[in-house]
Amino acid sequence: MKHYLSINDIDSLPDWVTEARELKKNPRAHRLLGAEKTLCMLFFNNSLRTRLSTQKAAMHLGMEVMVMNFGTESWSLEFGDGTVMDQGSAEHIKEAAKVVAQFCDIVAIRSFAGLKDKEIDAADVVLNGFVEHAAIPVVNMESSMGHPLQALADAITLAENAQKKRPKVVLSWAPHPKALPHAVPNSFVRMMQRQEADFVITHPKGYELDPSITKGSTIEYDQYKALKGADFVYVKNWCCYSDYGSVLNRDTSWMMTKGKLGQAKFMHCLPVRRNVVVEDAVLDGSRSLVIEQANNRTYAAQVVLKKILDSNP
Amino acid sequence: MKHYLSINDIDSLPDWVTEARELKKNPRAHRLLGAEKTLCMLFFNNSLRTRLSTQKAAMHLGMEVMVMNFGTESWSLEFGDGTVMDQGSAEHIKEAAKVVAQFCDIVAIRSFAGLKDKEIDAADVVLNGFVEHAAIPVVNMESSMGHPLQALADAITLAENAQKKRPKVVLSWAPHPKALPHAVPNSFVRMMQRQEADFVITHPKGYELDPSITKGSTIEYDQYKALKGADFVYVKNWCCYSDYGSVLNRDTSWMMTKGKLGQAKFMHCLPVRRNVVVEDAVLDGSRSLVIEQANNRTYAAQVVLKKILDSNP
Amino acid sequence: MKHYLSINDIDSLPDWVTEARELKKNPRAHRLLGAEKTLCMLFFNNSLRTRLSTQKAAMHLGMEVMVMNFGTESWSLEFGDGTVMDQGSAEHIKEAAKVVAQFCDIVAIRSFAGLKDKEIDAADVVLNGFVEHAAIPVVNMESSMGHPLQALADAITLAENAQKKRPKVVLSWAPHPKALPHAVPNSFVRMMQRQEADFVITHPKGYELDPSITKGSTIEYDQYKALKGADFVYVKNWCCYSDYGSVLNRDTSWMMTKGKLGQAKFMHCLPVRRNVVVEDAVLDGSRSLVIEQANNRTYAAQVVLKKILDSNP
Repeated sequence: MKHYLSINDIDSLPDWVTEARELKKNPRAHRLLGAEKTLCMLFFNNSLRTRLSTQKAAMHLGMEVMVMNFGTESWSLEFGDGTVMDQGSAEHIKEAAKVVAQFCDIVAIRSFAGLKDKEIDAADVVLNGFVEHAAIPVVNMESSMGHPLQALADAITLAENAQKKRPKVVLSWAPHPKALPHAVPNSFVRMMQRQEADFVITHPKGYELDPSITKGSTIEYDQYKALKGADFVYVKNWCCYSDYGSVLNRDTSWMMTKGKLGQAKFMHCLPVRRNVVVEDAVLDGSRSLVIEQANNRTYAAQVVLKKILDSNP
Repeated sequence: MKHYLSINDIDSLPDWVTEARELKKNPRAHRLLGAEKTLCMLFFNNSLRTRLSTQKAAMHLGMEVMVMNFGTESWSLEFGDGTVMDQGSAEHIKEAAKVVAQFCDIVAIRSFAGLKDKEIDAADVVLNGFVEHAAIPVVNMESSMGHPLQALADAITLAENAQKKRPKVVLSWAPHPKALPHAVPNSFVRMMQRQEADFVITHPKGYELDPSITKGSTIEYDQYKALKGADFVYVKNWCCYSDYGSVLNRDTSWMMTKGKLGQAKFMHCLPVRRNVVVEDAVLDGSRSLVIEQANNRTYAAQVVLKKILDSNP
Repeated sequence: MKHYLSINDIDSLPDWVTEARELKKNPRAHRLLGAEKTLCMLFFNNSLRTRLSTQKAAMHLGMEVMVMNFGTESWSLEFGDGTVMDQGSAEHIKEAAKVVAQFCDIVAIRSFAGLKDKEIDAADVVLNGFVEHAAIPVVNMESSMGHPLQALADAITLAENAQKKRPKVVLSWAPHPKALPHAVPNSFVRMMQRQEADFVITHPKGYELDPSITKGSTIEYDQYKALKGADFVYVKNWCCYSDYGSVLNRDTSWMMTKGKLGQAKFMHCLPVRRNVVVEDAVLDGSRSLVIEQANNRTYAAQVVLKKILDSNP
């Protein structure tokens, strides 16, 4: 394996989940694997879980870590070909990526969708710029299009909590005051399509995700119908994809409640707005898996780093 | 010992001071104690001494350190119970604290007083939020109410410089252009109350600290009278406590001068405004202990981390 | 050697270049040299290459590293003698430098020219403040007046690519939308004056660098004449020195092109504005050395840190 850019870079999801759960039992087992190897983590956006868990995963493997808030600590980047750079941007991705690649062995990048221009976001210029120009493995710590470390942590959490071979898993849209990106639901959908599960997506009409991603997955507009018999409910807001970046409604009736959840386990990637996305009673109740999901971020990152280190000795 | 939140968490101040002075002689003596343990330092406010000395102390003990400017690098936190989070805050302390606790073994937190609402500051919501919801030891790197790492460093400095068994120590208010918190004087007073000393607090009328803290300590409004025969003078500005957060005066006559100091040693937690809080002649003179106080921040932090590691093997 | 403040602190440039090239072959050869030694990197300005390469160099030597954005994470500094500090600055360089020196073994500092007041910039108050008040070695990571880590990396790159004993090296001014400091050209000129080379500086009239630095070096105002027969062309913008900080022109005819470059190798310190300072065809062509220059930043920093560690066991 070279990069970890999306769920598609996982060759066998069950094998990776198994290996992550092994690492969780003995996180320092491979503490010599990363010796004299450096992970550089570049943040173009805020982060809590990703920042700490990825760092922790690298330290478990004995790696050196350099963390940088690229957006505030470095130079503003240009991505266009042939641009006359006489405006705000001081450095081109071509130079930045090549240069960073010389100071580390793996580069991990977080760069969110701007939610203003669908094509620009779809191009995922920061992540793909590093892939194109840096000669080293690149890890996606959430890009415009996906958050595959989160989805892998979700797969681990599902495996740890599943009582059936083929559980019913529902991805349920939730209201939110702000327009949020599609990265988390995109990767969750892609991951679920590789799981044995009865998978249903539910959201108000107009909130359809990118159809090229949801193709083949069931969409049910009636949340109550969708939730019926669910074993796991993954709640998440996202903004409108067709009228890109807009907030069509903040229909509070879509908030997840204890009543709607029933016997299902509750999942969310965090951070979560209490009593907007989901009510307190769910988060504070025994069916919530959100803290364990966050914990599994460490082992998701660790299996990814380990696979990369194994492939690049 | 679980947490280090205030001076009250010290079981025996003389023993801790002795141990810190031992660590100072051989800082790497326990370099294996923190192996495979991680300290996470979360800053909600600026820092120089605390940031570097606490990191250094952890490295002396062989710990891994993750430093994070929570305020700018993570999500804005909500602290209320039952809040409908449809405003600025993206994450609740309940989730944030539980999540952070999974990525480290000890969490250290700096979160200053806002000086707008006495009750909110008294609740010390950030620090206490982590104590309540994180399942790991919490270290106070200055909260609204106290700065016990500073006070412990001050105790070490007093012990190193005391010529008498019962020195006279004066805490003397100083003028300042801005309203400053009570954390440093609060912890210094609490620490002095556990020392064998002739301890006097002096400040203009109206600048009384929280009476529940100063209870039992001598307050003398006449600075000259207070300073008479002093062995140590600890100078510090703080804003009005009763008319919370206000600056009653900037009476320059309260500035510490070489003349007033006499034969006493000068102490201050730093940063200090020269020729406002204290004149150059004092800071540049031989009686100033401020640099050594800062140096002792490393050993104060180190004894705290060591005690916590010893109690949580 | 105590400090690394300017090119003048290099005793023998050929020996340092040779040693750096040895380190490049085996970067971890001295991985025990820095054990239990701490490098503190203080940034008052943005950085990409310097931040990552210096950290990497320190890790190669087994040092602990603490990185701090002093400007945003600490307190605003005062530099004047005798100032009544009742305005914006909360801490004096005297205290800050003495304090930092207690928490590390080497301090590295980046603080750019303000380009408003020539005398203030010439005083290099941040760097020299640390030199004066910190009792430990200081490394210049680009100050108002010089960028000697860059110039050392440039010397390594020249040595690696020179085909002649006495190559022709041209420093060629380039247009830029903003006023840029003189640090890079200053140090490059100083370094070239210690090289065996046919060295020419070319720029439009009015862009003369500090004459006390360029004294003895050839200045040729006709860029075409200057470039004739060049083996290496180092391109860089800087603002006017005599009318300090002003931008006299943005004459695009001074941009470096493939045609002008001819058979010469192209050098630039990065970040570089494409199609303003230099056209794409040069940067994307085979004669560009900019990525290797950046790579050599690691070994420049490493030889500096190694020399300091060797002198301060």
